[in-house]
Amino acid sequence: MNPVIETILNHRSIRHFEDKQLTDEQIHTIVKCAQAASTSSYMQAYSIIGIKDIEKKKKLAEIAGNQAYVEHNGHLFIFCADLHRHEVAGEMEQVDVSTSLESTEKFMVALIDATLAAQNAALAAESMGLGICYIGGIRNNSEQVSELLKLPNRVIPLFALTVGYPAKMSGQKPRLPLTHIYHEEVYEQDQGHYKQLLNEYNETISQYYKERTKGEREDTWTGQMVNMLKVPKRMYMKEFVQKKGLDIK
Amino acid sequence: MNPVIETILNHRSIRHFEDKQLTDEQIHTIVKCAQAASTSSYMQAYSIIGIKDIEKKKKLAEIAGNQAYVEHNGHLFIFCADLHRHEVAGEMEQVDVSTSLESTEKFMVALIDATLAAQNAALAAESMGLGICYIGGIRNNSEQVSELLKLPNRVIPLFALTVGYPAKMSGQKPRLPLTHIYHEEVYEQDQGHYKQLLNEYNETISQYYKERTKGEREDTWTGQMVNMLKVPKRMYMKEFVQKKGLDIK
Repeated sequence: MNPVIETILNHRSIRHFEDKQLTDEQIHTIVKCAQAASTSSYMQAYSIIGIKDIEKKKKLAEIAGNQAYVEHNGHLFIFCADLHRHEVAGEMEQVDVSTSLESTEKFMVALIDATLAAQNAALAAESMGLGICYIGGIRNNSEQVSELLKLPNRVIPLFALTVGYPAKMSGQKPRLPLTHIYHEEVYEQDQGHYKQLLNEYNETISQYYKERTKGEREDTWTGQMVNMLKVPKRMYMKEFVQKKGLDIK
Repeated sequence: MNPVIETILNHRSIRHFEDKQLTDEQIHTIVKCAQAASTSSYMQAYSIIGIKDIEKKKKLAEIAGNQAYVEHNGHLFIFCADLHRHEVAGEMEQVDVSTSLESTEKFMVALIDATLAAQNAALAAESMGLGICYIGGIRNNSEQVSELLKLPNRVIPLFALTVGYPAKMSGQKPRLPLTHIYHEEVYEQDQGHYKQLLNEYNETISQYYKERTKGEREDTWTGQMVNMLKVPKRMYMKEFVQKKGLDIK
């Protein structure tokens, strides 16, 4: 196993950090790594906002549902899908590009570009001995986050990445069976086998929680998913995204 | 510089591969690395279809605009956003989760999950001495790709990842200035400075193309972007995505 694969497989989300800030050099290395990722048609359709200000971190932590590690960490990055830059390019070249920018296709491109960059940033940080955690919770109130970061039109916050020196390691949660994620030639057509794999995974997860909680937590993956998904969340998102000039047509 | 950062910064898209197939062990290592990525609320909202069949590769290459390396490579992975699994979980638990699955929020989650996994796969492959190239071109006809891969409802193909032994190395294209991608505390508010950085980048790109083409290619980044974006592409995407039961509400 080479050091890259080792870093990748050793990943776990870190939710307790030491009170030690990243240096600007570390931050720049992480951003440079983010930028080295592939980008669709050279669009580089994302921006990263770095937050040091403790008041702002506190505000973001509140929005994310009072997750303490959004406030207390070594550095906080906010990854945004960004098609504003391309609108400005249109202005500079005096060409109307708005139909493209408002398409679902380009919305997808911006999400993909931002996320490729983010995962490079995450792995770069982890390779430096730092811990990371992605925070989707900032989407609890994307409007408020956008105001806080003064995001222009056609830019939306996607998620935060907290980075820092791990104060407490956490475990790794078992993933879906490889053959459930990975299909050969076509998507699994045998519904019986598909469900069988999910049942096997439920067993694994059930065991995992029991062992960690000394038998107290009874849960399965499908149970956990359904409990979460039965209460629709962030249903304002469509309106927000379209108000920001994305995913309209 | 550690080996992870070195691999990340050394990335370039490879478009010519030797005629040598990946072993199943290599494929499984790559998928295992994909699965190790962070996932939103444990959803693991993606699937990967691996293609060995040469006829299918040929068909996908045609769809992607006759890109030869979609046909000739060591292995072809198709990354899909997948909320079908969660619908099946709903069936198994007899709970209706369709409102969640049809939300823009969960569409975003699925795109983000799939892309985090993909970038892990890409880096794992690169760390093994393999080359990679992302192929957004399969979105030229997502309907046809879905039929070819027999994707169920609530699963859409996002992009392909060609992997293989590099037959020809390629160069690295200069990225946007770090300070244009990375903002401190708030998004750049000074439009003059914002455009100045784009103009400086245009200079860099213009030089880059001139040097590579012995002065023949005159191009800038904003010029290139605008030329591409002025002709809206894949405008069928919204209808396709919604027909597949995603991004509806």
